[in-house]
Amino acid sequence: MTTTNFGMIGLGRMGANIVRRLARHEITSAVFDVSPDAVKVLAAEGAVGSVDMADFASKLATPRTVWVMVPAAVTDSTIAELAKHLQPGDTVIDGGNSYYKNDLKNAELLKAQGINFVDVGTSGGVYGLERGYSLMIGGDDSVVASLDPIFKALCPGIESAPRTPGRTGEPEQAEYGYLHCGPVGSGHFVKMIHNGIEYGMMAAFAEGLAIFEAADEMNPAYELDIPAITEVWRRGSVVASWLLDLTAQALVESAELTEYSTQVSDSGEGRWTVQAAIEAGIPAHVLSASLYARFASRNNDEFANRVLSAMRYKFGGHNEKPQSGNKA
Amino acid sequence: MTTTNFGMIGLGRMGANIVRRLARHEITSAVFDVSPDAVKVLAAEGAVGSVDMADFASKLATPRTVWVMVPAAVTDSTIAELAKHLQPGDTVIDGGNSYYKNDLKNAELLKAQGINFVDVGTSGGVYGLERGYSLMIGGDDSVVASLDPIFKALCPGIESAPRTPGRTGEPEQAEYGYLHCGPVGSGHFVKMIHNGIEYGMMAAFAEGLAIFEAADEMNPAYELDIPAITEVWRRGSVVASWLLDLTAQALVESAELTEYSTQVSDSGEGRWTVQAAIEAGIPAHVLSASLYARFASRNNDEFANRVLSAMRYKFGGHNEKPQSGNKA
Amino acid sequence: MTTTNFGMIGLGRMGANIVRRLARHEITSAVFDVSPDAVKVLAAEGAVGSVDMADFASKLATPRTVWVMVPAAVTDSTIAELAKHLQPGDTVIDGGNSYYKNDLKNAELLKAQGINFVDVGTSGGVYGLERGYSLMIGGDDSVVASLDPIFKALCPGIESAPRTPGRTGEPEQAEYGYLHCGPVGSGHFVKMIHNGIEYGMMAAFAEGLAIFEAADEMNPAYELDIPAITEVWRRGSVVASWLLDLTAQALVESAELTEYSTQVSDSGEGRWTVQAAIEAGIPAHVLSASLYARFASRNNDEFANRVLSAMRYKFGGHNEKPQSGNKA
Amino acid sequence: MTTTNFGMIGLGRMGANIVRRLARHEITSAVFDVSPDAVKVLAAEGAVGSVDMADFASKLATPRTVWVMVPAAVTDSTIAELAKHLQPGDTVIDGGNSYYKNDLKNAELLKAQGINFVDVGTSGGVYGLERGYSLMIGGDDSVVASLDPIFKALCPGIESAPRTPGRTGEPEQAEYGYLHCGPVGSGHFVKMIHNGIEYGMMAAFAEGLAIFEAADEMNPAYELDIPAITEVWRRGSVVASWLLDLTAQALVESAELTEYSTQVSDSGEGRWTVQAAIEAGIPAHVLSASLYARFASRNNDEFANRVLSAMRYKFGGHNEKPQSGNKA
Repeated sequence: MTTTNFGMIGLGRMGANIVRRLARHEITSAVFDVSPDAVKVLAAEGAVGSVDMADFASKLATPRTVWVMVPAAVTDSTIAELAKHLQPGDTVIDGGNSYYKNDLKNAELLKAQGINFVDVGTSGGVYGLERGYSLMIGGDDSVVASLDPIFKALCPGIESAPRTPGRTGEPEQAEYGYLHCGPVGSGHFVKMIHNGIEYGMMAAFAEGLAIFEAADEMNPAYELDIPAITEVWRRGSVVASWLLDLTAQALVESAELTEYSTQVSDSGEGRWTVQAAIEAGIPAHVLSASLYARFASRNNDEFANRVLSAMRYKFGGHNEKPQSGNKA
Repeated sequence: MTTTNFGMIGLGRMGANIVRRLARHEITSAVFDVSPDAVKVLAAEGAVGSVDMADFASKLATPRTVWVMVPAAVTDSTIAELAKHLQPGDTVIDGGNSYYKNDLKNAELLKAQGINFVDVGTSGGVYGLERGYSLMIGGDDSVVASLDPIFKALCPGIESAPRTPGRTGEPEQAEYGYLHCGPVGSGHFVKMIHNGIEYGMMAAFAEGLAIFEAADEMNPAYELDIPAITEVWRRGSVVASWLLDLTAQALVESAELTEYSTQVSDSGEGRWTVQAAIEAGIPAHVLSASLYARFASRNNDEFANRVLSAMRYKFGGHNEKPQSGNKA
Repeated sequence: MTTTNFGMIGLGRMGANIVRRLARHEITSAVFDVSPDAVKVLAAEGAVGSVDMADFASKLATPRTVWVMVPAAVTDSTIAELAKHLQPGDTVIDGGNSYYKNDLKNAELLKAQGINFVDVGTSGGVYGLERGYSLMIGGDDSVVASLDPIFKALCPGIESAPRTPGRTGEPEQAEYGYLHCGPVGSGHFVKMIHNGIEYGMMAAFAEGLAIFEAADEMNPAYELDIPAITEVWRRGSVVASWLLDLTAQALVESAELTEYSTQVSDSGEGRWTVQAAIEAGIPAHVLSASLYARFASRNNDEFANRVLSAMRYKFGGHNEKPQSGNKA
Repeated sequence: MTTTNFGMIGLGRMGANIVRRLARHEITSAVFDVSPDAVKVLAAEGAVGSVDMADFASKLATPRTVWVMVPAAVTDSTIAELAKHLQPGDTVIDGGNSYYKNDLKNAELLKAQGINFVDVGTSGGVYGLERGYSLMIGGDDSVVASLDPIFKALCPGIESAPRTPGRTGEPEQAEYGYLHCGPVGSGHFVKMIHNGIEYGMMAAFAEGLAIFEAADEMNPAYELDIPAITEVWRRGSVVASWLLDLTAQALVESAELTEYSTQVSDSGEGRWTVQAAIEAGIPAHVLSASLYARFASRNNDEFANRVLSAMRYKFGGHNEKPQSGNKA
């Protein structure tokens, strides 16, 4: 049987693909998931399967490194359960989208057992398997350094982008696509802001393209080809970006995007980013607005709108019954 | 037959009540409206009815003063038609919600005929008949001065608010509730900003009350009595205001406001205010956001939201199908 | 010596005036403050002075009611110190601007000693002595009920505003200007949102008036009299409000407001309101924007602006050195 | 002497580099600029210099194509002057940052003389010479088609980005980096929205990085290396973009960005984008906020802030004198 000291708990899209990318770099993983089927799939690809956490831990050589990649809601309980099966010198990596303040608590609990904690903000989504993952890492220097082979296998690598003008000599860690950001929590902190920025960029595109979509109301001669516009911007324009690439791709497949929802979810990072901005006293108009637009997309603005209609009725006698087709 | 040189064109809620308030101050109006029924109602109350514009003009002693109170969309055509029946020395008042830049054009056209133009921004809504109207007036000094009896009859009057500390001696015009703001257009300009501020204040209340409405999701023990809260704020709090009075009134009648629309209209002033802010280079985050929230209330954010969902699907594989009941 | 079971700790502007207003309603207070001079002033007006907390507690008949009105930063330590001198059945009121989540902790600590806790959000500012205070109260039913004489003495009273149409019969508590909002914390929660709304309303006025101030750049003929405009709106307009009254008053004294700072502080409530909105998933564009504008007023936007200038230089070669007098 | 029918008026950074890029594709330009020195530089590189517009026109073979690349403020007068020297069948290209509504006027004027008009929104900045320019083109089909060799020489080319998945067969025009968007004005319309989106994306990065810069106030252990963070995001992250590349580059040179201005200019496009959004009734929170942040960076928020301070003083007695060092 293969011997490894690296394990993955949580075999969703992200966790499974991280295992696969590591395998391509000849790092074998022990794996566990609450779904036995998910374990089977990975085991069939060469990973070391397990039936429960005790089994999982027993299949890892020490000192163990366990990457936990589960939904934020069960991260704490998963880590607590896992800790029962670990021993001093082992390391737990929280690679999920956890709140950075929570990392401090988990690190404290594990430290009492002599277990190390490292937080890794992981960006890359469904493309990570092929493109590699952008990794933002928080933890003690020596612990993070010991995990370098893992991070190097997962990161996109230096050749994935042209070198930044002004950088010379031996490449720094960041140029490979992973970064030890600072002490525990700082990896998730940096990832949190990353996602906050992502919300803002997404909203900028969404608002701009929506003006195009409505442009024929302003000037009937403007029947703009939005798929072609996003395509032309991919080359030589200031807004060229991976998000634009993906948008152009979605629009080629579906010019009206009618199969996509008008309700947009938000995860914790967008909310935490705004809270961090407020704690720091930094104006964050754009990051907040992009979050609120998602709230409104899910109709969380209904009571507020009723208040407005009630006021309008009271002072102006405006008839505020729902109007169908009222667009502009 | 009563002789008068004051006429009103447009007998909607505002126009009709202005005629009535003037009548209480013994100023008789000649009246015209495209609806003969509207004319009949006012004629039955003592106004001088008319069947068309020529008839209307003929019933006015010269120099005539004609207050035009029609929807913005037909203001220009109404004034153009009216002008055919007027003569040099007459005065046209545009009392509607017209764009201040448009006033300059109408004033120019009328001036070529020797006819004066005055723009009056009129606030007060359905309460104006009893409370009086706040009047913001633009036009030449002598023309505006000659209309003082009209404005004095319509305004709320000095006793309608306690005197501002620091003001002494003979009250100024503004303390009566009307103000000659400056040259043609300035009345509508001031009214436009008034409405922009109104949008912002309304949105502040709406957002705050909406947090109350959702508070039980944060803390189930918080079953807040929103009607009582708005009532308590009416006395001694910093947010005491007429809008709060009206909100408290609406909530007493309907604690959930369920009979009011979740779609909120916007008129020109909110839009023009933002455009003026941009022309002047003044940050107007609040005024703009309150306008956009109304756009979103009418689902004008749908395409933008589809763009967001498409991006999320592309980079994260997020399933962005409509979720029912997704509230927070 | 006067016997009383009501005491006030913290004799700043608010605390001192609450003592004075109670005295007008024949409720004597024992008083304490870290400043002996502050104690002396109130003692000279008839309050029962004290030299330390033990002395303060000893001068109160039991069961004691102690209103704590100290800066948020020292509220917890003051309550903890005070509790050492209290006994079961006593009640502590936190009347300051505390975070509602903090109330739950203090209530818990006091409850362990059999001491009651009530939180009171207090609005009214420097005008409260004369106008009365708007009181938003959280706590157990029986405890809050027992304090009714205090609240009734402090509140503005039913006659301070015309009755809301639709309200009939025996007036409810809220119509006097005080309200038992719910369990512990709910008083500060309601006050928090009140202040959030206040921020939004203030910003709406500030943005609108700033457009007036810049209007002469758009149209040199518009030399608008901003003091007169705010005065005219006080009567009959939709934006009539106490904040407008105060603004009109400030502008009468100083049309350019040049003696006021361009840096605007913010206290906890504005920040907590936004955080509550985010927790509840409610769009709060206006409340957030008004908070961020204050951050920016204190130049907390400087690094962000340097980032923008750096980008502009890099892609466009724009010379982004400080420009003097660059207004629009 | 070289014969050419292509001329460039306006030899600033953009105009000169367009001439140079065309020269690399063996298209010679006649050139004119109000600065004789600017003409000399290009003439030395092989362009056909001229001393005034008449001379310029005389050096062009007919039918002439003249690209006008001058500041927006002088575009109209330049085109009007140029038109005097042109003849039916010639074509004028406005390649500057003009307002799309203005294009319609210029097209009308030129059409009366039988001269064609084409508007080209040109993105690419200082990098355009090497990377090529993203071109957004408005005009009549046949006229635009006849200019294809020009656009093909200027555009980045198909190889400048990987093909969008889902696109197959013969590449469309947009895949080369230029696009005929629609009738006159539509090129500048699309470029306008491009720049609006650019503002929003820039602000998203600026706000996020500013939180990093202030993070040590929240957690002293967070001494984040912002240059390294922007570098790590360049590979595999969702926010990867050209703007990020440039930001990473600026930060490598200057981690604090201290040599860049805290005052950020804005050009017409950002303003026009918001106005277009309002005309179309589309919520544009992010695009507007990014514009207003630039206004505030130039202290255009000063009067608004004084209004806030005045209110705070009036209701709360808050001492609102400038505070130095007030950061959070």
